[in-house]
Amino acid sequence: MSSVFPTDSVGLVSPKLAHFNQPLRLACGRTLEQYELIYETYGELNATASNAVLICHALSGTHHAAGFHHPDDRKPGWWDSCIGPGKPIDTNKFFVVSLNNLGGCHGSTGPSSINPKTGQVYGAHFPVITVEDWVHSQARLADQLGIEQWAAVVGGSLGGMQALQWAISYPERIRNCVSIAAAPRLSAQNIAFNEVARQAILTDPDFHAGSFTEQGTIPKRGLMLARMVGHITYLSDDSMGQKFGRELKTDRLNYDFHSVEFQVESYLRYQGEQFSNSFDANTYLLMTKALDYFDPAAKHDGDLTATFANAKANFYIISFTTDWRFSPARSKEIVDALMDAKKNVSYLDIDAPQGHDAFLMPIPRYLQAFSGYMNRISV
Amino acid sequence: MSSVFPTDSVGLVSPKLAHFNQPLRLACGRTLEQYELIYETYGELNATASNAVLICHALSGTHHAAGFHHPDDRKPGWWDSCIGPGKPIDTNKFFVVSLNNLGGCHGSTGPSSINPKTGQVYGAHFPVITVEDWVHSQARLADQLGIEQWAAVVGGSLGGMQALQWAISYPERIRNCVSIAAAPRLSAQNIAFNEVARQAILTDPDFHAGSFTEQGTIPKRGLMLARMVGHITYLSDDSMGQKFGRELKTDRLNYDFHSVEFQVESYLRYQGEQFSNSFDANTYLLMTKALDYFDPAAKHDGDLTATFANAKANFYIISFTTDWRFSPARSKEIVDALMDAKKNVSYLDIDAPQGHDAFLMPIPRYLQAFSGYMNRISV
Repeated sequence: MSSVFPTDSVGLVSPKLAHFNQPLRLACGRTLEQYELIYETYGELNATASNAVLICHALSGTHHAAGFHHPDDRKPGWWDSCIGPGKPIDTNKFFVVSLNNLGGCHGSTGPSSINPKTGQVYGAHFPVITVEDWVHSQARLADQLGIEQWAAVVGGSLGGMQALQWAISYPERIRNCVSIAAAPRLSAQNIAFNEVARQAILTDPDFHAGSFTEQGTIPKRGLMLARMVGHITYLSDDSMGQKFGRELKTDRLNYDFHSVEFQVESYLRYQGEQFSNSFDANTYLLMTKALDYFDPAAKHDGDLTATFANAKANFYIISFTTDWRFSPARSKEIVDALMDAKKNVSYLDIDAPQGHDAFLMPIPRYLQAFSGYMNRISV
Repeated sequence: MSSVFPTDSVGLVSPKLAHFNQPLRLACGRTLEQYELIYETYGELNATASNAVLICHALSGTHHAAGFHHPDDRKPGWWDSCIGPGKPIDTNKFFVVSLNNLGGCHGSTGPSSINPKTGQVYGAHFPVITVEDWVHSQARLADQLGIEQWAAVVGGSLGGMQALQWAISYPERIRNCVSIAAAPRLSAQNIAFNEVARQAILTDPDFHAGSFTEQGTIPKRGLMLARMVGHITYLSDDSMGQKFGRELKTDRLNYDFHSVEFQVESYLRYQGEQFSNSFDANTYLLMTKALDYFDPAAKHDGDLTATFANAKANFYIISFTTDWRFSPARSKEIVDALMDAKKNVSYLDIDAPQGHDAFLMPIPRYLQAFSGYMNRISV
């Protein structure tokens, strides 16, 4: 069956579930007594477990990063352009682990899961999770899989923040940190966009203070708006212009408020509606808060160089010229701190018109440089 | 009483109401049989009516551009930094007219007005208004005031678009066109942000398809979200950073979704809530559509140079370096077209950190250059 898939695909994959019964103390002060993480693996773990690569996902990502769940799937996992035989994260060389983060809504324990204490959906009662919490939960997944040290922890955007946190929290357990299109902390504007998304959800009458499942509703309007505003920040002005320009949906203007006048409106509404049918609103709030709260230097009086003092990994930092969500300047902050801290760091700013979403795209120069780095990792 | 006001203030001002009984045929194909425009004037019209300046407001602006309505008003009109004795639009020299546009919600006929045909609020039945419609309605106001030709038509953002449209639609009636922080048409990203704002209002259950007044509701949630997302685009990332940074509202993190964690969240929510208490939702939709539809070159196969072919005004185009809503590149498109059309054009890009809102700010270099241009206008 897998013959229908491209030869550089990992082919058919199936998620697995890891159970954790050891309580996890969270940054918010609360404790999760037990939880599950859903994950996929691609490639084979070698005898010394030295070839493992952890993929960390971004805001709306899932464990399904590569390959196909069914022979008739039209779309592969979200980072299939970078994971597979001969691809940057080469599954002929690496054993790749990709999980859905704690608090997610794709199979790991999160707000839409049943709280074993109450027998009810967690909903609004699920604790706020931070990037540090994720890294600790991922470390336990590594323990279960027999992985003492990752050859690399890799991620884009919020995923890149997790990779950085790994290098800070577990310096002995990560040899390479690949942080793509990330930032050392959000700017006021980043937080502002997240706040708009949150308010869209929180003020949706169908949100019911997070207890929408009990009420039999879904805050679709809020989720749609949150996704729409987020989506604008993922694309560059130029890429939106090239994709849609001011092309009209129909030949003439309708002069009303309801009709879809321009292609870009149609695209955004579609994206928003699709998302609102598949994503949990409480998870969305949680993910935006994880972004807002990420600020590893806060524990070091804002000194990012000091923050990286104990890190031992090699760092590969990548940014994209037209990314205005986490601009190249934000990556350079990371690079400067790492260099000041005398760490081994390589930095690449990729000339790409696609904006923040470029990290997901098969951009030749990006794939080539990314491959070059990953190929040099000895396992 | 006016002694309490600064000496460079126009002091106490009172709005006036102009009635129009001649039907106005609109771009959408519909006709307004009658309408009213509320306006203020500052300074004195000279004997030859050669010193009149029209102020065109932006998305949420009003007729109250300068001075104070009451002796105890804490804030003057929205452009008081630029209008008054000795200011760029010097009321010792000019007779300044500032109106609330048709479709507005501050006293001119708009969606929240009573439809004389039905005796009910227009609400959703108010027609969509375009920048061209505004200019035609403003021309009738000029007729009533005995102003054959404006010494200048001046505006920022959407107001700057009206100034450009004046030069195109009424070449004989405008000697100087001052277009600040504007664009010759919206980009796909601009439209996308407007669409998010519209969807926030349209999907608010309290909007009732625009008939919220009849239903006794106000779509406050939608208006708040629309304003929040708009507001982000008015400020530069840097100015937000300088204003708020990542300063916490309280000493420690709350780890929940409802608390205001960062100053920027508090600011945005306050702005959004204030706005939702004072602005009409149907007017907001109308204003965003006027922006989307503005595209004077569309009648000339997209050729902006040809669009300006018959213009006779002198043009003064101003942009601000950190404006990412209508960036300097957009102003340069206007300047290039005007130069190609062999028009008399001056252009100034002001180095200012405040983003799009810079056009409202008392930035010394801006005020100085603006004054210089206005002072050279002979009346």
